Amino acid sequence: MRIAIDASGGEYSPHEIVKGAIKAAQEYHVDIILVGKRSLLHVLAGKNMNKLNLSIVGASQTIGFHEHPLQAIRKRPRSSIVVGINLLKEGEADAFVSAGNTGAVLCAALLNLGKIEGVERPALASLVSLNQSSPSLLIDAGANADCRPNHMLQFAELGSIYARYIFGIDSPGVGLLSNGTEETKGNRLAQESFRLLNKSGINFLGNIEGTDIARGTADVIVTDGFTGNIVIKTVEGLGDSFIRVRQVNGDEHLRGRALLADVGLGFLVKGMDYREYGGACLLGVKGNVIVSHGRSRAKAIKNAIGLANRTAEANICQLLSGVGNGQ
Amino acid sequence: MRIAIDASGGEYSPHEIVKGAIKAAQEYHVDIILVGKRSLLHVLAGKNMNKLNLSIVGASQTIGFHEHPLQAIRKRPRSSIVVGINLLKEGEADAFVSAGNTGAVLCAALLNLGKIEGVERPALASLVSLNQSSPSLLIDAGANADCRPNHMLQFAELGSIYARYIFGIDSPGVGLLSNGTEETKGNRLAQESFRLLNKSGINFLGNIEGTDIARGTADVIVTDGFTGNIVIKTVEGLGDSFIRVRQVNGDEHLRGRALLADVGLGFLVKGMDYREYGGACLLGVKGNVIVSHGRSRAKAIKNAIGLANRTAEANICQLLSGVGNGQ
Repeated sequence: MRIAIDASGGEYSPHEIVKGAIKAAQEYHVDIILVGKRSLLHVLAGKNMNKLNLSIVGASQTIGFHEHPLQAIRKRPRSSIVVGINLLKEGEADAFVSAGNTGAVLCAALLNLGKIEGVERPALASLVSLNQSSPSLLIDAGANADCRPNHMLQFAELGSIYARYIFGIDSPGVGLLSNGTEETKGNRLAQESFRLLNKSGINFLGNIEGTDIARGTADVIVTDGFTGNIVIKTVEGLGDSFIRVRQVNGDEHLRGRALLADVGLGFLVKGMDYREYGGACLLGVKGNVIVSHGRSRAKAIKNAIGLANRTAEANICQLLSGVGNGQ
Repeated sequence: MRIAIDASGGEYSPHEIVKGAIKAAQEYHVDIILVGKRSLLHVLAGKNMNKLNLSIVGASQTIGFHEHPLQAIRKRPRSSIVVGINLLKEGEADAFVSAGNTGAVLCAALLNLGKIEGVERPALASLVSLNQSSPSLLIDAGANADCRPNHMLQFAELGSIYARYIFGIDSPGVGLLSNGTEETKGNRLAQESFRLLNKSGINFLGNIEGTDIARGTADVIVTDGFTGNIVIKTVEGLGDSFIRVRQVNGDEHLRGRALLADVGLGFLVKGMDYREYGGACLLGVKGNVIVSHGRSRAKAIKNAIGLANRTAEANICQLLSGVGNGQ
């Protein structure tokens, strides 16, 4: 597999991105295409260029975190995001990973790759690992702030197919995130989505609550992108507090981690730490696009490349091509 | 102050409720009115009846957790919830605390107490203590699944007034929960609410994200009841995981707690534990109503009674009577 990585995207780019990419090349034996400022990347990749399957594609421009997505990708055709997405389009890469401006990545993917036929709204599927036994996939983690019930049904379909391959389970259980488990609970969107999901062929478990997220009740958690983004970031904020407390305690950091592991909490803190998990997959566009946290360091980038590799191996775009036909 | 408490509401009623009420009577020197099955409560309260200011008001019926709120309160006029709310209405209690069916409590409060003039949608204001230095108030924590922008503006007004008295700060900072900090972020509801909040006289900090909840960025977190409920329960579910892990480890429980306190995480786990925090206040009805978690044990009930006492002391209903006039 050939994984392109946005070396100019993210708060810790390019150093941490390149470090993560090198680790991924070693661990997954994938070909890595670093997309960014050519001369700088040559220096950073250094002798690894020869030892590993690393290559560089130049992209002289960078899109900042606070730029307006559409304007930015139009103004900067030689940005790492646009160049990376185009590598997918031209078949020169099998997946693209970026920790840059999420809106710009989504925008470039929608415009330059296009949507899979039948898919109305591509959505971000984010891995949630707060449970030792069963990780979940939350969709939509933030691509669509305003949704209609039929979009939610498609999120369930996209998420089910992805979960089947990523988690290796035959019939992933799908829960609809709501403010109560009863069928009558929910805002209008959730209530109407419940009815659509209930009569679909999906393994629909019904409504689930916020408490179910850490319990791993559902393999796939369906929600609109507004709620999904807030939930993911609430968990992240709590994870951050754990990290911060450890930092305040100075060299207690490692001791803190060891103690947490000692009381059986290591997995939980790890699952709440964006520095550990690999990112979210944009499902429904014609290409494998993984969006990483803007504050990703090497480990998260390595994990994101691992997810990109598994996504490309599963040929997920091909598998998603049936979505929307059933309606 | 005279605090009525629903002794038949909650998973651990009546034993834990009575235990919590006795502790509260000792700690806060308030008069406690236990509302529930008279003979059973006499036995449970026992000799404390004479030592403390405890009294009993009979309520022979109980409303279950899964009953339809409106139907239940109509069918059971002698339920602890209806009797307790009526004590407020008749001026025989200054506040009412229930860990029973939240929907039924809201319904009984709306029907029997009525809304404060000018308030369109009473809302649940929940204390969030995930930060050592600054607790927050999240409103609406679940009373209104579907909201309009003017409801959100009122939540901000209600929450600001309550936070001023509960936290003792002059001008509480209000954040609007959204999927990004930029003004352009949000679903339609959040975007329109942003505009209303921005031109209101409130100390509006702008949009805040899920990550800000644990940071304590805002004193008052404004959101619709659907999102608010999911956020509160997501945090609770994570707290649950910590408890569960400790339980799996058997007698490691106490050791786990001590270790967490040792690394400076005690406050965080405490803030995520519904067994510690006191409940949410229903703001905008003509009476002081505190809703506790259905799984509250004695400590949470005691804390809820403490919150009820502070709410009644602040004469919060009187203070809220100006809300809605400014629009």
